Amino acid sequence: MLERNQVLGDKIQHIDIAKHNVVPLVDAMRSMAYSARDLARAADIYERMLRDENCGVILCLAGSLISAGLKKIFVDMIRNHMVDAIVSTGANIVDQDFFEALGFSHYIAEDRFKAGMDDDKLRDLHIDRIYDTLIDEDELRICDETTQKIADELEPRPYSSREFIHEMGAYLDHVGCKSPDSIVYEAYKHNLPIFCPAFSDCSAGFGLVAHQAARVDKPKVSIDSVKDFHELTILKVKNRETGIFMIGGGVPKNFTQDIVVAAEILGHEVPMHKYAIQITVADVRDGALSSSTLKEASSWGKVDTTYEQMVYSEATLAVPLIIGYAYHKGAAKARKGREWNRIFETVAV
Amino acid sequence: MLERNQVLGDKIQHIDIAKHNVVPLVDAMRSMAYSARDLARAADIYERMLRDENCGVILCLAGSLISAGLKKIFVDMIRNHMVDAIVSTGANIVDQDFFEALGFSHYIAEDRFKAGMDDDKLRDLHIDRIYDTLIDEDELRICDETTQKIADELEPRPYSSREFIHEMGAYLDHVGCKSPDSIVYEAYKHNLPIFCPAFSDCSAGFGLVAHQAARVDKPKVSIDSVKDFHELTILKVKNRETGIFMIGGGVPKNFTQDIVVAAEILGHEVPMHKYAIQITVADVRDGALSSSTLKEASSWGKVDTTYEQMVYSEATLAVPLIIGYAYHKGAAKARKGREWNRIFETVAV
Amino acid sequence: MLERNQVLGDKIQHIDIAKHNVVPLVDAMRSMAYSARDLARAADIYERMLRDENCGVILCLAGSLISAGLKKIFVDMIRNHMVDAIVSTGANIVDQDFFEALGFSHYIAEDRFKAGMDDDKLRDLHIDRIYDTLIDEDELRICDETTQKIADELEPRPYSSREFIHEMGAYLDHVGCKSPDSIVYEAYKHNLPIFCPAFSDCSAGFGLVAHQAARVDKPKVSIDSVKDFHELTILKVKNRETGIFMIGGGVPKNFTQDIVVAAEILGHEVPMHKYAIQITVADVRDGALSSSTLKEASSWGKVDTTYEQMVYSEATLAVPLIIGYAYHKGAAKARKGREWNRIFETVAV
Amino acid sequence: MLERNQVLGDKIQHIDIAKHNVVPLVDAMRSMAYSARDLARAADIYERMLRDENCGVILCLAGSLISAGLKKIFVDMIRNHMVDAIVSTGANIVDQDFFEALGFSHYIAEDRFKAGMDDDKLRDLHIDRIYDTLIDEDELRICDETTQKIADELEPRPYSSREFIHEMGAYLDHVGCKSPDSIVYEAYKHNLPIFCPAFSDCSAGFGLVAHQAARVDKPKVSIDSVKDFHELTILKVKNRETGIFMIGGGVPKNFTQDIVVAAEILGHEVPMHKYAIQITVADVRDGALSSSTLKEASSWGKVDTTYEQMVYSEATLAVPLIIGYAYHKGAAKARKGREWNRIFETVAV
Repeated sequence: MLERNQVLGDKIQHIDIAKHNVVPLVDAMRSMAYSARDLARAADIYERMLRDENCGVILCLAGSLISAGLKKIFVDMIRNHMVDAIVSTGANIVDQDFFEALGFSHYIAEDRFKAGMDDDKLRDLHIDRIYDTLIDEDELRICDETTQKIADELEPRPYSSREFIHEMGAYLDHVGCKSPDSIVYEAYKHNLPIFCPAFSDCSAGFGLVAHQAARVDKPKVSIDSVKDFHELTILKVKNRETGIFMIGGGVPKNFTQDIVVAAEILGHEVPMHKYAIQITVADVRDGALSSSTLKEASSWGKVDTTYEQMVYSEATLAVPLIIGYAYHKGAAKARKGREWNRIFETVAV
Repeated sequence: MLERNQVLGDKIQHIDIAKHNVVPLVDAMRSMAYSARDLARAADIYERMLRDENCGVILCLAGSLISAGLKKIFVDMIRNHMVDAIVSTGANIVDQDFFEALGFSHYIAEDRFKAGMDDDKLRDLHIDRIYDTLIDEDELRICDETTQKIADELEPRPYSSREFIHEMGAYLDHVGCKSPDSIVYEAYKHNLPIFCPAFSDCSAGFGLVAHQAARVDKPKVSIDSVKDFHELTILKVKNRETGIFMIGGGVPKNFTQDIVVAAEILGHEVPMHKYAIQITVADVRDGALSSSTLKEASSWGKVDTTYEQMVYSEATLAVPLIIGYAYHKGAAKARKGREWNRIFETVAV
Repeated sequence: MLERNQVLGDKIQHIDIAKHNVVPLVDAMRSMAYSARDLARAADIYERMLRDENCGVILCLAGSLISAGLKKIFVDMIRNHMVDAIVSTGANIVDQDFFEALGFSHYIAEDRFKAGMDDDKLRDLHIDRIYDTLIDEDELRICDETTQKIADELEPRPYSSREFIHEMGAYLDHVGCKSPDSIVYEAYKHNLPIFCPAFSDCSAGFGLVAHQAARVDKPKVSIDSVKDFHELTILKVKNRETGIFMIGGGVPKNFTQDIVVAAEILGHEVPMHKYAIQITVADVRDGALSSSTLKEASSWGKVDTTYEQMVYSEATLAVPLIIGYAYHKGAAKARKGREWNRIFETVAV
Repeated sequence: MLERNQVLGDKIQHIDIAKHNVVPLVDAMRSMAYSARDLARAADIYERMLRDENCGVILCLAGSLISAGLKKIFVDMIRNHMVDAIVSTGANIVDQDFFEALGFSHYIAEDRFKAGMDDDKLRDLHIDRIYDTLIDEDELRICDETTQKIADELEPRPYSSREFIHEMGAYLDHVGCKSPDSIVYEAYKHNLPIFCPAFSDCSAGFGLVAHQAARVDKPKVSIDSVKDFHELTILKVKNRETGIFMIGGGVPKNFTQDIVVAAEILGHEVPMHKYAIQITVADVRDGALSSSTLKEASSWGKVDTTYEQMVYSEATLAVPLIIGYAYHKGAAKARKGREWNRIFETVAV
């Protein structure tokens, strides 16, 4: 019989790009073909957008990336001013990053679990599976409850997810961040905005539903997704030149591409995203947004086609190479933290 | 030189499952292999969930499905009581279905446009591309403006997307629906709830941002994604047995699977989703939610494994066969419209 | 414990396109998007190539298609003069079609076997797995032995795979074909050539290796893959207009596309393949031949681009619809069996 | 208008693993998830098979890998005794490696060519395209002619592809190899066997067809694919413990897995392949051999399941990391060249 101790064994460890100078490797890939060449071009574009002093960089995260060991990369991007805003699925930010900041971990699943024949047993053990990675469900419930607690102490009104996530950072600052690396906490300290435009779609959703249900008829915290969209659009208006670095597709991709159009609708003539990278294995032939090419996005007036590159790779292989490349080239040396959260201190949304 | 008239030629036409009795074809697929066999099993499961008199059916839509000619199928599902609630990306409901209800159409793109080499020219012509399908961007702007107009006339407070979409149906009822088939309008007439948990992520987002920006400091309509989650959870609590029919993955899949857990968090012991079907081409090896197996969902306590089937197919091939099968078998003959919107008339959320 | 009887239960049954008039369904798909529209266009092209009275039709088979229940379709194509030559992987022709002609069957695997956790047990039971389909390995060994027996009785010299497969048909004619439908037998009766350019790569390979090993130093039957290529090229030279219907990629695709170039090298100016269809789920981004576009093949001078269509679908869904469409449209009514094997009675290769 | 000079610009350059110590990077991937973790495990298995002193290593190559810049890796594997036999598609060995050994190059295609809209123009310029890579077709014809010349000078009899490729190496030795790195030439010098079981399926096929056509009724060189299978099986019999490193699937995968069964049929009890790695993006759900799991191969008695790992990645990303890892770990330090070609000097086939 399976026992929790046996199943929850080795922990996921986050790769540290500072330790791997991948510049020569990526340089060698430039004269190869297929994904290698595309990856090198994406690295070039990311370097270029960091060196473009007017360009704001938006990182889009979809897929279970934090549980996969990529967290420290994103934290180091914040620390080294390689990103100015993050747009993510809720799971990455709340269930995975904030979860680890509360002191919990993700676990490496034995190969047999991937097959899915033991999921019923995992269910009985209160263990959740993400493909080849495991989570202690009881710990995840503590994460849910913590978001409820945070909501309970806030002034009841509509919040953007950015505002709420900033409060999560403040909470970590207050109680102490239990992980040496946390996206939520590092973003809080750097005044870097994080948006989860489908915020209920994660552990925070559970906490917030519990909050609203408990309030019954009393005033409640709500999460206004329109405000999210408005705020991100304001960032585009205030910082007209932008580049986007997308890992996966989904809502973060769509939402971030859309702000060019939203700015126009609000009466601001802004340029398309000047740089765009997407790492994905999604197949273009299903016609979905996640797999749609960046060229297609240019028909919508969202992405310029001069510097765009899609990279066909599962993220754990490509992300360390592309971001590691820009890191070791020192592409962001001249950049400073833009602290875009401060924009919202003066602009009413 | 490209001209708009040439480019916007033949219109997408929606397939009518009533005209195609696919029962013998799907029956023949049951003893084949691969996707054919899986498709037949999915059809069996859908038939079974419709014949299960206690079971509520939730349809999840991700990907550009309405623009692809699948609209009438979903409308006929509503008309024939083959679905009780819809959870969708915003694009399907607003940019595509509501858009057509306003009298506009999607267009078949010539093969050359797929290659992406003409997207700049399409941009100049105000034509947007979805893989092999085209949209008149000027018409889409009218759709944006219409959602703003609807928001402007509503009492300013937080709304669930369901509430707002119901108002869109009321608008169509008022001005007249310009399409013979509309999901939004048909759902309105049948009191069937539609949720778009990432509602800003579509044409409605543009209209609502414009609404909020115009209001400046005055009270605004906001879209509370927590309320969405709360409402959908209440449906699960009120109708404990559920089956889910998922086309694509993304937020609709995650959100709908999650309500089992949310109900539990609110103190209600509810069973997992008893039936689950997903049609997708997403590859499980990227570890993302969209591609994750329904078995994996059972480790989270969300989906029972007795009646679950994934079908590996692009949706336009599989959806007409699976839903057409249940339609021609008369699986929903004994079902009635559940009018789940009425639940929210008595339950405060 | 698993028992053979339990595991080898229901048999694969081959779909009969004559029973399913899919014409209205495919016609409806023409005005949809994505795979549906592409499928309808492929059906149009197949119809067109059958109605083009000068056009020879070559069917290319890769993937395990016969074990998947598609056999009768290909047999009916031969019977109804909808194909003039077949180029296939060895497995489809020998391990699967000839295997069934010897009286054996393929079995439907229970869903659990797909996961791969029981393959060791299947090994112990002498049961082989093809994804979701099972084979009795002891029966397969009889198939191997039969090909050895056929080789043993032939004059020892180099044969093309076509010649050897024709002898397999003669063998079936002699001993009696145990299946009502057999590609090998039907092709034999219609003098239709079947090529397996990688012929050792299947059950016949086992039989032929045993034959050669037993012969030691004595003259042996050998399979000359150059002769295969030469013969197929001669067909192109003798029937200059050709269309190719490819299911999957691999050697059959490459080999058949190549004959245009081979004809040229032999001093014959022949046109490119005039029509080309490929059904595949392979992703173009790995740069492999199987996934390469038919447009790419035109850079090599192999395929004309006027009438080419790739269809993104697993074969069991798309093949019955496309071939069933042409069948029910009576596209081949005016065609006769070309009996291309007769060409080799007069042309020395 | 396109001009050849403009189109054929920068050349593909082959990555040199000796210059990139990827050991720390791969080590870091071991505690991540998805492809990164699988890649690290594959690297571990490859290291283990090299350190297993009884184990013979067979490298299987499918897909256009040489044109993609991976050639030097395979050459260095031969030089450093990291491989004992190669089984490949013909294109890698003849059209690409031998082609470069004759002094020709592959070219980097501009991004626009990928879209396929210029393939007609490339056709007119005698330029062939492999996804994002270009070839001078006139040079390729010289490659075809060279294989004809080699055939013309051989004793007319059936050859295995191994024998013929060895003669290609002898030719390079005679006329001088024009590339610093050539698989064919390096294998020749190391007496390492290379098999192309579908040998006609490449540039050599063109040369050999021309040879056979020119011979008319006179004795000819033929390529006996049964002999290929027999020879590779003998290697398994003579070196019972084997590991296979597969890049892509197709005929090389099938053929190499099959030799375990072939040995058994010839009366030799040999163990299954003890180690197996496959790098592929093929999707298991189409039921084809290329995508079939190594677990599935164990049901056929071909591959042991203790040390097997599939890696989901396009090859240009994963191959340098996995082979570079074993190289820099010095895993093959204790290995010597086995010169398996010598086996055929004493064993009659």
